[in-house]
Amino acid sequence: MLAQADVIAGYRTYLDLIQPLVGDRPTISTGMTQEVQRVEGALTEALSGSRVALVSSGDPGIYAMAGLVLEMCAVRGVDVVAAEVPAANGLVIEVVPGIPALCAGAALLGAPLTHDFAAISLSDLLTPWETIAARIEAAARADFVIVIYNPKSRKRHWQLQKAQQILRAFRDGATPVGIATSAMRDGQRIHITTLDQLHLAQVDMQTTVFIGNRSTRCYGTFMFTPRGYDRKYIMDIPT
Amino acid sequence: MLAQADVIAGYRTYLDLIQPLVGDRPTISTGMTQEVQRVEGALTEALSGSRVALVSSGDPGIYAMAGLVLEMCAVRGVDVVAAEVPAANGLVIEVVPGIPALCAGAALLGAPLTHDFAAISLSDLLTPWETIAARIEAAARADFVIVIYNPKSRKRHWQLQKAQQILRAFRDGATPVGIATSAMRDGQRIHITTLDQLHLAQVDMQTTVFIGNRSTRCYGTFMFTPRGYDRKYIMDIPT
Repeated sequence: MLAQADVIAGYRTYLDLIQPLVGDRPTISTGMTQEVQRVEGALTEALSGSRVALVSSGDPGIYAMAGLVLEMCAVRGVDVVAAEVPAANGLVIEVVPGIPALCAGAALLGAPLTHDFAAISLSDLLTPWETIAARIEAAARADFVIVIYNPKSRKRHWQLQKAQQILRAFRDGATPVGIATSAMRDGQRIHITTLDQLHLAQVDMQTTVFIGNRSTRCYGTFMFTPRGYDRKYIMDIPT
Repeated sequence: MLAQADVIAGYRTYLDLIQPLVGDRPTISTGMTQEVQRVEGALTEALSGSRVALVSSGDPGIYAMAGLVLEMCAVRGVDVVAAEVPAANGLVIEVVPGIPALCAGAALLGAPLTHDFAAISLSDLLTPWETIAARIEAAARADFVIVIYNPKSRKRHWQLQKAQQILRAFRDGATPVGIATSAMRDGQRIHITTLDQLHLAQVDMQTTVFIGNRSTRCYGTFMFTPRGYDRKYIMDIPT
């Protein structure tokens, strides 16, 4: 997709990461929290006839830019159409999936997500904290594994500890918690702790936090969530 | 990873899909519901000194084999260690992340997952239906987008309709619902319907179902979930 693009748009840090793939083509780059301006620039180029690649990290559909592109097209009344719809009119949009941070982090931690899970962002910039807290409580009560995105930033310092308190009402303090920072990038840090120790973990804007459910266990250097095979199958097999 | 493997293990259908990458190397393949036997075979080979690649579709950590490998190592007392832990003893296990069905399907549908979501499997082979139903209700109540795995099989015919009834108590009947079957494989079918029409959708074992939250909208040939930018940003920008 990048090879076919006339213009490449993205958060500045991501464009730096893929500089060899960008080459000397024109770019549209903006800083953090400038998502709307970035999409605005990309849309303007696309509507003038250029092929534009808008780059996200991980998967563009999970807490990333794909939704905002469609949202801004809707707000502006720009007709859009999927690449595989034949002979339709409108701006052709193709979302290219990727490996989200929740998969990259889970792989490095072992297998925390092999049963039902919920992904929750702690960023209350665009979502009221009451909604976020209600989701944490609902997911904790129903025994979902919980993946926390955006656990902390310079301005967001108390939310993770508040989440820990909510979770602690429904999960044992020894529940395994995985901390994956910059998974599969420079500066990668992988660490397994417990729910009671979560407030001591080194967490930043590049971190994804994995809260085990009531069955999640640690083994060796890993954490994993059984799917229930032990009840039905494993005991039948000679060891 | 496949190139480095001495033996390649996997569900028969998946090994067929990657036959050109397997070549003439020995394989361990078993049918559906034979997961334990497959891992058993892979472990036996690995403990005898072979490098074994165990293949999943999508991401091996999401409703797939990574957890079962660790679980069976734990049950058998096989020491395991992550590839990046230096000089440790034990069977080296490396989980290689991939693009899960929830990302592939979401990309083809637009951007249903750009806000908090829950993944729930309707398979009650290993999980009691009461647990599954409680998770659907909790996720519906807390306004998560919901991704349903394993919605239907030959033996599993009533669960999706029951899920629809639970969801209907909390979500409008016009809520967008995305149906992604064999996403990015032969036989791909992508379709957007509504919660009230879900029971009429063509759904099978290769299908992932995406239930929108209260904000999810359709636009053009797509569905998407806004992150709330409109409240904070979009109105400030000249159209």
